[in-house]
Amino acid sequence: MYSLTVCDHIMIAHSLPDPFFGPAQQLHGATLAVEVTWRRHELGPHAVVMDIGEASSALSAVLEPLRYRNLDEHPAFKGQLSTTEAVARHLSDALRHHFDETFFAGLTVLLREHPGAWATYDIAFDTD
Amino acid sequence: MYSLTVCDHIMIAHSLPDPFFGPAQQLHGATLAVEVTWRRHELGPHAVVMDIGEASSALSAVLEPLRYRNLDEHPAFKGQLSTTEAVARHLSDALRHHFDETFFAGLTVLLREHPGAWATYDIAFDTD
Amino acid sequence: MYSLTVCDHIMIAHSLPDPFFGPAQQLHGATLAVEVTWRRHELGPHAVVMDIGEASSALSAVLEPLRYRNLDEHPAFKGQLSTTEAVARHLSDALRHHFDETFFAGLTVLLREHPGAWATYDIAFDTD
Amino acid sequence: MYSLTVCDHIMIAHSLPDPFFGPAQQLHGATLAVEVTWRRHELGPHAVVMDIGEASSALSAVLEPLRYRNLDEHPAFKGQLSTTEAVARHLSDALRHHFDETFFAGLTVLLREHPGAWATYDIAFDTD
Amino acid sequence: MYSLTVCDHIMIAHSLPDPFFGPAQQLHGATLAVEVTWRRHELGPHAVVMDIGEASSALSAVLEPLRYRNLDEHPAFKGQLSTTEAVARHLSDALRHHFDETFFAGLTVLLREHPGAWATYDIAFDTD
Amino acid sequence: MYSLTVCDHIMIAHSLPDPFFGPAQQLHGATLAVEVTWRRHELGPHAVVMDIGEASSALSAVLEPLRYRNLDEHPAFKGQLSTTEAVARHLSDALRHHFDETFFAGLTVLLREHPGAWATYDIAFDTD
Repeated sequence: MYSLTVCDHIMIAHSLPDPFFGPAQQLHGATLAVEVTWRRHELGPHAVVMDIGEASSALSAVLEPLRYRNLDEHPAFKGQLSTTEAVARHLSDALRHHFDETFFAGLTVLLREHPGAWATYDIAFDTD
Repeated sequence: MYSLTVCDHIMIAHSLPDPFFGPAQQLHGATLAVEVTWRRHELGPHAVVMDIGEASSALSAVLEPLRYRNLDEHPAFKGQLSTTEAVARHLSDALRHHFDETFFAGLTVLLREHPGAWATYDIAFDTD
Repeated sequence: MYSLTVCDHIMIAHSLPDPFFGPAQQLHGATLAVEVTWRRHELGPHAVVMDIGEASSALSAVLEPLRYRNLDEHPAFKGQLSTTEAVARHLSDALRHHFDETFFAGLTVLLREHPGAWATYDIAFDTD
Repeated sequence: MYSLTVCDHIMIAHSLPDPFFGPAQQLHGATLAVEVTWRRHELGPHAVVMDIGEASSALSAVLEPLRYRNLDEHPAFKGQLSTTEAVARHLSDALRHHFDETFFAGLTVLLREHPGAWATYDIAFDTD
Repeated sequence: MYSLTVCDHIMIAHSLPDPFFGPAQQLHGATLAVEVTWRRHELGPHAVVMDIGEASSALSAVLEPLRYRNLDEHPAFKGQLSTTEAVARHLSDALRHHFDETFFAGLTVLLREHPGAWATYDIAFDTD
Repeated sequence: MYSLTVCDHIMIAHSLPDPFFGPAQQLHGATLAVEVTWRRHELGPHAVVMDIGEASSALSAVLEPLRYRNLDEHPAFKGQLSTTEAVARHLSDALRHHFDETFFAGLTVLLREHPGAWATYDIAFDTD
């Protein structure tokens, strides 16, 4: 199995309005460092998993609507908590539609919310 | 699959009394940077893998008995080598009893013994 | 010259209401990874720049009022832009009052706003 | 499952003579930071996945023929593109012959071509 | 004193044709991770050392002529060794002409040639 | 001003027998990640601050007597606390005698005792 990972980041604001989240119920923000990993069983004709530039552009395209935004007002998180896990799921779902899935085995989105904690969402296309 | 990772570290002393370990047979020490990853197939009611604070507290609780200790005198490593791998296994076994396994797919403990070498122990709850 | 650095982080929300900041004029947030460095010419009686626990507690104490907060509503940034540089200055000024300056040569606060950009504010006590 | 990872790096030159690669068609170079992970189900008699020194020596041995070399002239990449993915595959194939596979579950070679992009090649010995 | 740092990277090829450099006399390459730090005594009207976007654009502009290039053929290094130190000096000299020096106290260019070694060149404008 | 930094690490055991150090009074250990920075005003004939290999060898030579050792039994720390700061000072003093000081402006030894705390000792040769 081969994989390729590219990185980017976004700065967002949000609140987590459930007593479960303690002080994070208040409006606050985060820099989410993002790593997207694409996996495939065999390389394509150019001996790569994917063009790095194309991988970066696709990642940038799905991040764009979230950059410098208050997620409390974003339609994707209407009526649901915009936890790091939920944002990872949202980005994975958005990314998979940028590429022809038949070439890939799966993808993982990792979101580092601070240097000591991160979350991932992983899709295996084969077994979906 | 979702995952959440939290980090901590411990500073321990130990010796590895087997000629296999060369100079590390002497009493020496290590800062073990610890990363614990919890995996689950679906998120719970708060849209998280686990509360980060709770994950950190559980990690701290299992690390506490090892902090600033000489593992040569620790009952968990009596009669066995306290290699990085063995410490990772010990921490994984201790951590799994802190949570209701039915909610999780597995966990991984990674111990970085220096910036260029690390070991992991991984449990998949489903297939155990 | 000796120095000691300790790290922590905060998650804040804010807006930068000046056209100079483009999309960052909107309410958004950031994880600010914080590194504080204390410098002194000679070590004290315990052969340290400062107790690491005490350095971490002082840092935590000055970060506490900013954690999970919207800086637009924080008195320290009333009528001024809460840029990373301004937050670094605010934290430096708050920190220097936690310790007897006569023992130290200076301090630096570094704020990493994302993995590829950071700002610092540095005070040299000797020449102030 | 246990794993052990060791790190090293090489500095190489190469060109990627296909219009797909844009400016990277020119002769250029890269520092490839290398991480090799060995996995095994159970530890051996010394309670380790493998001796760290032996793992590092094996990695160094397979990297040696590529150090400070122009891969365009290297027989391993004759008639094929020396993409990061292809180098990862080459190193994995070379490494697996350094050890008795019956002890291991698999290995992964990760090559970081710059701080924001990396590729891996993974072999599972069990299912090969 | 305030500072702001922004990061980027380039992938270059070169040779170091002096026996002093051993195997690096051969044509090889490097990913140079670049960090540029701008220092100033007081912030400007927008409470920043410099706009991060502008700092990144200036850095990108001076890196552009070196990207995916063989430095052996680059006029800036004609008749001189393109060591990491020399590239750092070249980038510093190029960068200082992008901004009005009267606002700044100095700048530093750091080039990380691999994860365990880096070089810097530092200019103090005040005392030049 | 130019600088060159090279990295290494050691794993040591020690105790800090003063109530000031709380649980660290017990025998424990640490991985000390070491970064040594050499500074000079002008480059030498090979356009480098120093040969990286020579810098690494000198660092390795001064680290060797501490590797896998209990510092409580090491003559350099007899009758004094082997704090991170004291080890940094010890290494700096040992390193400066490896090179002709007239070529250098100074050196800094940084010791990272865990990912969130580090200490340095800095010598300016000019002003000593």
